[in-house]
Amino acid sequence: MNMISVGDLAELIEGKVEGDSSRLISSVRPIDDPEPDSVVYLEKQKDAAKLEGREIAAVICTPAAQIPNQTLIRVVNPKLAFLKALRYFHPQRKFEPGVHKSAVISEGASVSSGAHIGPNCYIGAGAAVGDGTALRANVFVGDDVKIGENCLINPNVSILDGCELGDRVILHSGVVIGADGFGFVFDGKEHLKVPQVGIVILEDDVEIGANSAVDRATLGTTRIGKGTKIDNLVQIGHNVRVGKNSIICGQVGVSGSCDIGAGVIMGGQVGLSDHMKIGDGAILGGRSGVITDVPAGAFYSGFPAAPHRTVMKMHSAMKRLPELIEKMEKSTGAKGTVEEEK
Amino acid sequence: MNMISVGDLAELIEGKVEGDSSRLISSVRPIDDPEPDSVVYLEKQKDAAKLEGREIAAVICTPAAQIPNQTLIRVVNPKLAFLKALRYFHPQRKFEPGVHKSAVISEGASVSSGAHIGPNCYIGAGAAVGDGTALRANVFVGDDVKIGENCLINPNVSILDGCELGDRVILHSGVVIGADGFGFVFDGKEHLKVPQVGIVILEDDVEIGANSAVDRATLGTTRIGKGTKIDNLVQIGHNVRVGKNSIICGQVGVSGSCDIGAGVIMGGQVGLSDHMKIGDGAILGGRSGVITDVPAGAFYSGFPAAPHRTVMKMHSAMKRLPELIEKMEKSTGAKGTVEEEK
Amino acid sequence: MNMISVGDLAELIEGKVEGDSSRLISSVRPIDDPEPDSVVYLEKQKDAAKLEGREIAAVICTPAAQIPNQTLIRVVNPKLAFLKALRYFHPQRKFEPGVHKSAVISEGASVSSGAHIGPNCYIGAGAAVGDGTALRANVFVGDDVKIGENCLINPNVSILDGCELGDRVILHSGVVIGADGFGFVFDGKEHLKVPQVGIVILEDDVEIGANSAVDRATLGTTRIGKGTKIDNLVQIGHNVRVGKNSIICGQVGVSGSCDIGAGVIMGGQVGLSDHMKIGDGAILGGRSGVITDVPAGAFYSGFPAAPHRTVMKMHSAMKRLPELIEKMEKSTGAKGTVEEEK
Repeated sequence: MNMISVGDLAELIEGKVEGDSSRLISSVRPIDDPEPDSVVYLEKQKDAAKLEGREIAAVICTPAAQIPNQTLIRVVNPKLAFLKALRYFHPQRKFEPGVHKSAVISEGASVSSGAHIGPNCYIGAGAAVGDGTALRANVFVGDDVKIGENCLINPNVSILDGCELGDRVILHSGVVIGADGFGFVFDGKEHLKVPQVGIVILEDDVEIGANSAVDRATLGTTRIGKGTKIDNLVQIGHNVRVGKNSIICGQVGVSGSCDIGAGVIMGGQVGLSDHMKIGDGAILGGRSGVITDVPAGAFYSGFPAAPHRTVMKMHSAMKRLPELIEKMEKSTGAKGTVEEEK
Repeated sequence: MNMISVGDLAELIEGKVEGDSSRLISSVRPIDDPEPDSVVYLEKQKDAAKLEGREIAAVICTPAAQIPNQTLIRVVNPKLAFLKALRYFHPQRKFEPGVHKSAVISEGASVSSGAHIGPNCYIGAGAAVGDGTALRANVFVGDDVKIGENCLINPNVSILDGCELGDRVILHSGVVIGADGFGFVFDGKEHLKVPQVGIVILEDDVEIGANSAVDRATLGTTRIGKGTKIDNLVQIGHNVRVGKNSIICGQVGVSGSCDIGAGVIMGGQVGLSDHMKIGDGAILGGRSGVITDVPAGAFYSGFPAAPHRTVMKMHSAMKRLPELIEKMEKSTGAKGTVEEEK
Repeated sequence: MNMISVGDLAELIEGKVEGDSSRLISSVRPIDDPEPDSVVYLEKQKDAAKLEGREIAAVICTPAAQIPNQTLIRVVNPKLAFLKALRYFHPQRKFEPGVHKSAVISEGASVSSGAHIGPNCYIGAGAAVGDGTALRANVFVGDDVKIGENCLINPNVSILDGCELGDRVILHSGVVIGADGFGFVFDGKEHLKVPQVGIVILEDDVEIGANSAVDRATLGTTRIGKGTKIDNLVQIGHNVRVGKNSIICGQVGVSGSCDIGAGVIMGGQVGLSDHMKIGDGAILGGRSGVITDVPAGAFYSGFPAAPHRTVMKMHSAMKRLPELIEKMEKSTGAKGTVEEEK
């Protein structure tokens, strides 16, 4: 178990101690359930009450937080400080290099001697797995797939033929990279399948959540930019491009050929029509349904998505609508009041 | 094949026979496709017409149902009676105890001699699997995972390290328990990953549908309460708590740190913003988008979710809006009529 | 590598050449990234500018397209022509017949000698796999499952007991066929599970996208009609019937017992309440939420879904609402202007 003094942790996370610097810390704990030798993180001032009378080694907090009778580590950016504390006590797990005897490595595949290939994994012909990368178990790696260094591929992930992953990519369980895009042509009798022969490229530091799917391009590449983070159950259609450092929350659906900039943030359950352009730094509020392009830096919400300010005005007006209609009808003597729908 | 007389089945399901009690029943059939020796279940009176002229052993129905020329088993709660009839003819499948030769059991794992571990399953170090539990195939069980008794874990499920399942838990194919929560801190240049070091606890009698995902807590526990049932493709974020006996329908998304009570019902495709509190017994209509807390016992719908009565009034008013605007403009001589959008 | 002259390709795709018929083509390329010996496809006239000064063997385009200084293959249906060109250069991959040594075939299963059973696949007792069908890897095929000829079952797919697939069915990674429907009866204390003992039938030429789930019927059959195509992360509830040649886009949720006609098109993230009837040829716009039946041939959108024309009128009126309320209040001297919500 890692142990560190309050003072040394403060130095590590660039904070100032108020109280006993010498006390030893053995864990990071949630604020609802601290332990005597733990450090906790106060995110919201109102949670300070939870710490009254509790024995704790130290509390990570902002320069302005009010927390009586506790040793504090005040920091400018408490979220970042908390992250660093977590990383100290929970360093990233290392998997032993080597290939499990139940794994199937095709001829012509190239697996680094520093890679970990877990039970029941399959590596296709011509595929390459880089140094420090771990495939935990039941992972499918298709032919000619390239996986960079220090990636973590969790159980039951499928990476189909020809797709490419950069370094430090994390794929959670159930992720599917490179399934066919959804493309058909109706010939009057049936839907003919358009061959999907492009690939998916996930650049360095991409992370994708459980059971999300990124489809291969029809031709060319579906590309997720460096450092972009995608949550669970997200659908990324064929030929989509996402820029660097974007954030895509759970259950978002991005239709084919969308072009999404860098630093974009999409709330949960957002949906994009096909061929939409989302400018750099744009924010799409949760559940937005986007059917027109969104300019860089804009904050859109609602369905059809529009500038958030406009949508809020409309919502506000809609709330007053029943009352207004009633008034109008009284003044004009129109026939009835607004009735509830069945 | 199980056979039972109409009279004995009636006793089993606490019903009263009208007609031939001695006839033998060999199956339960859908009302659209009955067979001569089958029992069917009349859910809606209008479906009675489907039974005209059909030879059937018996019909399970309410005390008031009108069904001419058939043997009836009248019961107070026909849904429950139907369930019992189904259970009689289709008892839960038992899997043979034992470990398939292709399964990989890590050293230090503890597998009950009464458990069934199917082909290509993996059990991590320190994990425990209880008596009567079945892992069908390609199931991943991480290190230190605890699985109780009489659970059914379907093919291609992933249960990541340290998570805990109670007794009689059912996980359908593709479920992911304990993937990392979606937590990052932007340091001005890149999104730094917050280590997700908590766990998931699924209490007794929880059932989770195909391809749903429950993320581990950052610290502490994401907890699904006893008897709660979750449908397919549902996302449960990190640090969420769900109480006992709640029902969460397909494609619901619950963001991080939500606190959901007992006996809550969420319709399909509902979405919750993070940190929402949903009181005991609350109902969220299908596709609700919740951005404020919902009190116990309330029925909310719409987006932003509000009391259902309010939302229905607003919808009703909105429907009349185009006509009202036209009227207003005629009376005030304003410039145009409402035009259709492209 | 396949090579073909412009003239021969034109014949194959039923087009007319304008320019050099003799030039050899070695690939199909995206219009954004052509190569000298490639053929590209001009979908939208505005993309013609991208081809200026580029060396390309030929451009597939409509009879009316304007593309200076390039060899053209003009066709009546360019989408279909493009599909045929793609199929010429990228014929469907054939998998070698045979059973991988790591696959587990249960006693009493019947696997055609012309089928390909990849690594770590499992085939249950009484199951049958037809000629020309490929199971790539980690595929679970339950007891008594029937899979027809020339199907492609991608990695990490689960097909539960008793389900049936026709010929030429394609299932993408993570698909779950035949998980239990979501059926419970509350007895006042707990939710009792209704046994789900029906099956799923996927007719010929059905294709289902990554991580989608089709639940088995409670009794009888959940059926997907011939030629219907389903995208990623779609949920099809128990007892649903979908007709022939329908198109269901990503993240759609179809609740139990819906009856969907032939030739229906559903945009992304559509949701259907249970027991809905959708007539043949109906179109449901993206994100529609359907709570009433939709007649054949109708185009519905919005939530609650209504005829698209009506919804558009309502949206148009809603946009003008804030301004109208302000006007009204000025004229009547009412207390305030519309304020933005927090």
